[in-house]
Amino acid sequence: MSSALKEFTPKADVPFYQATGHEEQLFETAWQRKLPLLLKGPTGCGKTRFVSHMAAKLGVPLYTVSCHDDLTAADLTGRYLIKGGETVWVDGPLTRAVRHGGICYLDEVVEARKDVTVVLHPLTDDRRLLPLDRTGELLEAPDNFMLVVSYNPGYQNLLKQLKPSTRQRFLAAEFDFPDARTETDILMRETGIDHDAAEILVRIAGAIRNLAGVDLEEAASTRLLIYCATLLKAGVSFDDAVKAAIVEPLSDDADIKAGLHEAIGIIRG
Amino acid sequence: MSSALKEFTPKADVPFYQATGHEEQLFETAWQRKLPLLLKGPTGCGKTRFVSHMAAKLGVPLYTVSCHDDLTAADLTGRYLIKGGETVWVDGPLTRAVRHGGICYLDEVVEARKDVTVVLHPLTDDRRLLPLDRTGELLEAPDNFMLVVSYNPGYQNLLKQLKPSTRQRFLAAEFDFPDARTETDILMRETGIDHDAAEILVRIAGAIRNLAGVDLEEAASTRLLIYCATLLKAGVSFDDAVKAAIVEPLSDDADIKAGLHEAIGIIRG
Amino acid sequence: MSSALKEFTPKADVPFYQATGHEEQLFETAWQRKLPLLLKGPTGCGKTRFVSHMAAKLGVPLYTVSCHDDLTAADLTGRYLIKGGETVWVDGPLTRAVRHGGICYLDEVVEARKDVTVVLHPLTDDRRLLPLDRTGELLEAPDNFMLVVSYNPGYQNLLKQLKPSTRQRFLAAEFDFPDARTETDILMRETGIDHDAAEILVRIAGAIRNLAGVDLEEAASTRLLIYCATLLKAGVSFDDAVKAAIVEPLSDDADIKAGLHEAIGIIRG
Amino acid sequence: MSSALKEFTPKADVPFYQATGHEEQLFETAWQRKLPLLLKGPTGCGKTRFVSHMAAKLGVPLYTVSCHDDLTAADLTGRYLIKGGETVWVDGPLTRAVRHGGICYLDEVVEARKDVTVVLHPLTDDRRLLPLDRTGELLEAPDNFMLVVSYNPGYQNLLKQLKPSTRQRFLAAEFDFPDARTETDILMRETGIDHDAAEILVRIAGAIRNLAGVDLEEAASTRLLIYCATLLKAGVSFDDAVKAAIVEPLSDDADIKAGLHEAIGIIRG
Amino acid sequence: MSSALKEFTPKADVPFYQATGHEEQLFETAWQRKLPLLLKGPTGCGKTRFVSHMAAKLGVPLYTVSCHDDLTAADLTGRYLIKGGETVWVDGPLTRAVRHGGICYLDEVVEARKDVTVVLHPLTDDRRLLPLDRTGELLEAPDNFMLVVSYNPGYQNLLKQLKPSTRQRFLAAEFDFPDARTETDILMRETGIDHDAAEILVRIAGAIRNLAGVDLEEAASTRLLIYCATLLKAGVSFDDAVKAAIVEPLSDDADIKAGLHEAIGIIRG
Amino acid sequence: MSSALKEFTPKADVPFYQATGHEEQLFETAWQRKLPLLLKGPTGCGKTRFVSHMAAKLGVPLYTVSCHDDLTAADLTGRYLIKGGETVWVDGPLTRAVRHGGICYLDEVVEARKDVTVVLHPLTDDRRLLPLDRTGELLEAPDNFMLVVSYNPGYQNLLKQLKPSTRQRFLAAEFDFPDARTETDILMRETGIDHDAAEILVRIAGAIRNLAGVDLEEAASTRLLIYCATLLKAGVSFDDAVKAAIVEPLSDDADIKAGLHEAIGIIRG
Repeated sequence: MSSALKEFTPKADVPFYQATGHEEQLFETAWQRKLPLLLKGPTGCGKTRFVSHMAAKLGVPLYTVSCHDDLTAADLTGRYLIKGGETVWVDGPLTRAVRHGGICYLDEVVEARKDVTVVLHPLTDDRRLLPLDRTGELLEAPDNFMLVVSYNPGYQNLLKQLKPSTRQRFLAAEFDFPDARTETDILMRETGIDHDAAEILVRIAGAIRNLAGVDLEEAASTRLLIYCATLLKAGVSFDDAVKAAIVEPLSDDADIKAGLHEAIGIIRG
Repeated sequence: MSSALKEFTPKADVPFYQATGHEEQLFETAWQRKLPLLLKGPTGCGKTRFVSHMAAKLGVPLYTVSCHDDLTAADLTGRYLIKGGETVWVDGPLTRAVRHGGICYLDEVVEARKDVTVVLHPLTDDRRLLPLDRTGELLEAPDNFMLVVSYNPGYQNLLKQLKPSTRQRFLAAEFDFPDARTETDILMRETGIDHDAAEILVRIAGAIRNLAGVDLEEAASTRLLIYCATLLKAGVSFDDAVKAAIVEPLSDDADIKAGLHEAIGIIRG
Repeated sequence: MSSALKEFTPKADVPFYQATGHEEQLFETAWQRKLPLLLKGPTGCGKTRFVSHMAAKLGVPLYTVSCHDDLTAADLTGRYLIKGGETVWVDGPLTRAVRHGGICYLDEVVEARKDVTVVLHPLTDDRRLLPLDRTGELLEAPDNFMLVVSYNPGYQNLLKQLKPSTRQRFLAAEFDFPDARTETDILMRETGIDHDAAEILVRIAGAIRNLAGVDLEEAASTRLLIYCATLLKAGVSFDDAVKAAIVEPLSDDADIKAGLHEAIGIIRG
Repeated sequence: MSSALKEFTPKADVPFYQATGHEEQLFETAWQRKLPLLLKGPTGCGKTRFVSHMAAKLGVPLYTVSCHDDLTAADLTGRYLIKGGETVWVDGPLTRAVRHGGICYLDEVVEARKDVTVVLHPLTDDRRLLPLDRTGELLEAPDNFMLVVSYNPGYQNLLKQLKPSTRQRFLAAEFDFPDARTETDILMRETGIDHDAAEILVRIAGAIRNLAGVDLEEAASTRLLIYCATLLKAGVSFDDAVKAAIVEPLSDDADIKAGLHEAIGIIRG
Repeated sequence: MSSALKEFTPKADVPFYQATGHEEQLFETAWQRKLPLLLKGPTGCGKTRFVSHMAAKLGVPLYTVSCHDDLTAADLTGRYLIKGGETVWVDGPLTRAVRHGGICYLDEVVEARKDVTVVLHPLTDDRRLLPLDRTGELLEAPDNFMLVVSYNPGYQNLLKQLKPSTRQRFLAAEFDFPDARTETDILMRETGIDHDAAEILVRIAGAIRNLAGVDLEEAASTRLLIYCATLLKAGVSFDDAVKAAIVEPLSDDADIKAGLHEAIGIIRG
Repeated sequence: MSSALKEFTPKADVPFYQATGHEEQLFETAWQRKLPLLLKGPTGCGKTRFVSHMAAKLGVPLYTVSCHDDLTAADLTGRYLIKGGETVWVDGPLTRAVRHGGICYLDEVVEARKDVTVVLHPLTDDRRLLPLDRTGELLEAPDNFMLVVSYNPGYQNLLKQLKPSTRQRFLAAEFDFPDARTETDILMRETGIDHDAAEILVRIAGAIRNLAGVDLEEAASTRLLIYCATLLKAGVSFDDAVKAAIVEPLSDDADIKAGLHEAIGIIRG
């Protein structure tokens, strides 16, 4: 970590995040240099947790927006509402972050509608501006504002991609699931199960992740392992737990589910 | 049932539900651990009844929403209405469940529009938050809030699927029709017909369910059997009852309907 | 008719309806047991008349809604209108039927938009509820409320079908055109033409109905025969009447129309 | 004309219409028997003029609506407008005709949106009702209300057709261009050109009409002939007139236009 | 020019327009006989200038509307706006022309949405009416109102065509680029460049126009030649001027642009 | 530079822009002759910087709009908002530029919706008018108004193109990335890295740009080089910097990313 980052003292209540590379240094450099950041990676690999961790560590508020097909620029910037016969402007989460400082995190940004680019482009210029045409304001982002976006390259399609002219406005980092040791630690820490049980779940996840893209749309996330460990800890049987927390959430296909149960049986021995 | 669940004393007025596996334990563990639950299964197999049963057993209000193509996040969270020249916020069913506690059940969730993910994601995080951008509120779900969703894997299509990033946020359980003995008991209990009549209806349903997916879009549900038994009990002839409550609701195709009547005649002997 | 139905004394002003099977018993049983009913059959075969007849016989108001591509749940349940600076809720036809009792008849229900399912599902449960999210009301249907829907299986397509999860909530009855004797009686009764003229029109309709689905999208309805008889009674020539009331309403294709005229000429002799 | 129609004395100011068959008798019978009427025929053959003629002859107001892709039921029935802080209902043309009597003529009805069926169906029943859900009114059509619709079978397509359930609610009449003698008379009467000039234009139209459907989307209408005669009368040269009023309005294709000019040259001699 | 047109004395400030045929006579006859006019021709060939010229010559205001995919009837006729708590009707450009007299020119009318036909049809009848359903007005067009529409047949497609029933309501004239001598004069007159420079630009345009439809979507318009001459007059080099005003506006394809530069080099010698 | 441009004295605070051809002369001539300008070129090659530079040099305000799929004419021209019970008109950025003078720059104009043409066409005529139908105003652009638009020919598609009738209203200039020497200077000047590091980044960009269109949707922009240099300057390692600022922003494909890293390794030596 470079000396320029010394002033960041981890706060209390910083959510646990186990770094898997230099992603923290990259985030901090981006924060200091006021560059926007793009996180790429599969579902449930820890992108959101990483952003929460960094926001807490930097001591700034975090505004998270789950993007979707119908999310428009106004959902981010704000709207007029009628109150007492008067229209009152209500800031959206992005405007709140720009006006008062903080990190605005647009999760799965490729899902948002195209007019969102109108707010992303001037905010990711060196000018760092947020024009609010409806109020006539032109907000300049303060030094403690940062824009972070994410998406999952695994199920992008041609209709839903960041345009190069948007993409090239971001520093980018790729995320993946934690390595086996780290993931085992996470399961033990988050649910209280013992090492052996955690390890076997991580080995199951590893086997399933090798199938992803072939038979499965997406691999078992760390989140599902935590769910499974939670059930085990609550006294649910191993078979019921992996069925409810791993197999059924991953597929509806009877053959695939049988294959998963078989693979799990072999790993468990 | 694990000891951790002892405090759940079934209330009076709990709708009858005949468990077919460990689904009650799973539901109760999910309730206690504050994990969201996904129910998968065919039409009319008892998913809704199961949720009603569990809500009554846990003594919490149930908010059911039948999802459809045009259901948006605002239908779940709420809207401003103009009353007396003033805008008044009216909570939607999900917000009511989060604000006051209870189970919110989104039936056929894959039918809902994509902006529903914006409310599902933060509610299914460990944070369990419901952001109401329109009111500026950030509601934290109380301990006695639970989110349950369902869909029918039988007629999902590529355009309407839960994204993996949404799916992997839920524990999942698969439902199917009750076994013959259970279903016979249900018919007798709900309509008052005798055992022989109930048994023959269940045998008819079993034969039809073997055809589903081949000639029929979907099998005869337990609900239809109850309708049929109701007609019989009301004095309608057997032929008229199976026609009105089983054959005609299942198909419009003359050949298929003739085949169904023939099969029913053979079973009835 | 079962004894349970004795209390239904036909009222004066009951529109004439000639039963063609046990449809009246089915309707009355459904009414008593509070089950919803689905009527299937071709255009103009008498489904609407049957519902009018039953509503009058049962002495309850009838609310008919012709469904179409743009019909939404709000068209059925109601809307807020602004009056005198205050928003006033105005019940839709379904809400009126639920609030005050009566039969709500959704004609060609498959044409309606998908959010209509949100009102049909809880109303066709055993709970028989109509949730009005906009007003915050949860109406329970009274004993004298019944939901009837209809569609024409002849021109359904893949995009417009009742989902099985909706379909299996209804008892169903299939309708067809009345038999020759009944239809002849109807023409004489409704228009005052003599038996011979009525009989020849019915024979023409019979011949045309054999062509339907092959060369014609749909057969000549009883309604068109009544139109034709009305023109004859008003002094219009036979050739002009069948042209205006049968041939031209059925097709725009010159060859098909010539074939129809030829067939009619042969039948007339 | 049947004796039943004697009471219709043609009024002054009745637009000239040269009947080509029994269409006037059909219209009058439909008017008396309160049956709705469908007119089918090519562009500019006189359908609109016929309806104007009949409305004037019957002495009732005529409400004409040119239907189009975006025409909705509310365009026909009416809307609430905000005036002085109060919402005021403003009748649409159909409601005006139903409330005060008159003929409502929906030109090219197949172009209208599907929710228009919701107003056509109850109005074309024997009940002749116009439900205005927004105002809560249920208007019964007076004896002097009549609904007339038209379309051009020549360029209907699969997406835009009257559904049989709508079509079979109308008496129907087919229209075509007037015969040569009648059309010559019309040109002379409407523009004042001499018989020879009128006759040559009618012969040109006849030749072009034989091409329609093959090379031309639609034939030269009587309207275009009147335009052409008007130009000739105003001193425009024959070549310029047929170019501006016949050839250019019919096609943009250079080869087709050359063919038309050649054919016209041969006919003119 | 026919004697009937004598009363039209060209006004001062009439924009220069060099007639290429009898289009002025046709326009004036259409104006006098109250017939609507359709102008067809490629981009930038002078249709708009012609209409401006004729409007000035006739001494009437001109209302020009550039049509587009989202242009609706309300954009032409007007809308209610809320001012001081009261709704105020604001005339659209077409209504202004009908109410106060003038020429309304709908440029590229095929781009407009389909509900525009609802205003074009009654205005192009012999009745010349503009119904304003929203205000309840039925405006009759004054003698000094004229409707002119235009489109470019070169890039019409099947989805965007005037329906024959609309097209056959207009006199039509085809436009093309001016001949070489006329175009040379126009360049000299509008920009002040000398005859040799003007002539070479016109020869370049001629060569490019032979390519249009093959390699180029559309030919170089007179407007682009004027831009090029303007740059030359301002001291820009010949190469820079043809690049900026002719080659780059015509194509993005490197090969086509190289071909154009080569062709221009050969012509220039 | 022509003498006519002498009066433009570069102001202080003019953003640095290194001309790569005669684009400044073209811009200034267009400004003086009141012609609109179209800039074509890849993402991040400096089009926006060029416009900022020229606006500052000319001493006029710059209004930049990032166009997108949902951008409508009203977003450019303005809207009525309700304030204190009164509707208040709020100018959009284009109207502000026309009303008060300045350059309005529509970035990626092909992304905007089609009704934007309604404001572009009259503004790019010799009349230079902006009609505001909603307010009834017809604004004439002042001498110090200029319209500049841009797009990237590299990812246009058939559905999103400027229509020739729009395109031919603009002078056009093509942009590309700066040459190696210029780009090296830019990196040093903007980030403070030394010449060797800057040169190696420019050589990497050059290699990548040769791949664009083949394996990469778009080449590395100058902007990304600046990001990379910023990271290097902040102490991030070379490998981490090129990964975060060049490789990850350009592609999600593992093979392509490996290829890029390999190529970068070879260049770096």
